Amino acid sequence: MSRTHLLVCRGPDCSSRGAHAVYTRFATEVHEAGLDDAVVQTQSGCVGPVCGAGPVVCCYPTGAWYVGVTPGDVPEIVGRDLARGEIVERLEATTREATG
Amino acid sequence: MSRTHLLVCRGPDCSSRGAHAVYTRFATEVHEAGLDDAVVQTQSGCVGPVCGAGPVVCCYPTGAWYVGVTPGDVPEIVGRDLARGEIVERLEATTREATG
Repeated sequence: MSRTHLLVCRGPDCSSRGAHAVYTRFATEVHEAGLDDAVVQTQSGCVGPVCGAGPVVCCYPTGAWYVGVTPGDVPEIVGRDLARGEIVERLEATTREATG
Repeated sequence: MSRTHLLVCRGPDCSSRGAHAVYTRFATEVHEAGLDDAVVQTQSGCVGPVCGAGPVVCCYPTGAWYVGVTPGDVPEIVGRDLARGEIVERLEATTREATG
């Protein structure tokens, strides 16, 4: 079974950078997109490797880890990654690390 | 970038069924398998849909959700799913739900 699983890191660094507002915005947008039954939304402990670049959001099955996510980024992640399985490259950890 | 991500649910139901011992056993076994740099191990909030069947462990990129996991199951999950990307079917949520 393949599930669509959204994790919002609630470690101390991500929380201090606004992860709670990101989490609640996801709850709203997932609901408004009609995806309540399709998406499992979970808070997670610190995901570690990109700690300094939070808030960090991990999406599966795409496997994309998004960093520096703001509430304004949430509709695009919901509409593209969660709804259609498309990675939002501009927010990916590897893109942002590479481009500074 | 594809990451190997291990989530151990630490919601109240899973915690009451022994999730802490499962979590610490994973930390030991991942280390002993030499996978510290390859695996991100995270605690998560309640993952919901299989709440009554915990402890629940989610593995990516396989996308397998394992239920009723005991510390004794951990070496097999590490050696097969995390190390080689093989799903441990006997522990999968869908298998256990189907067979009772």
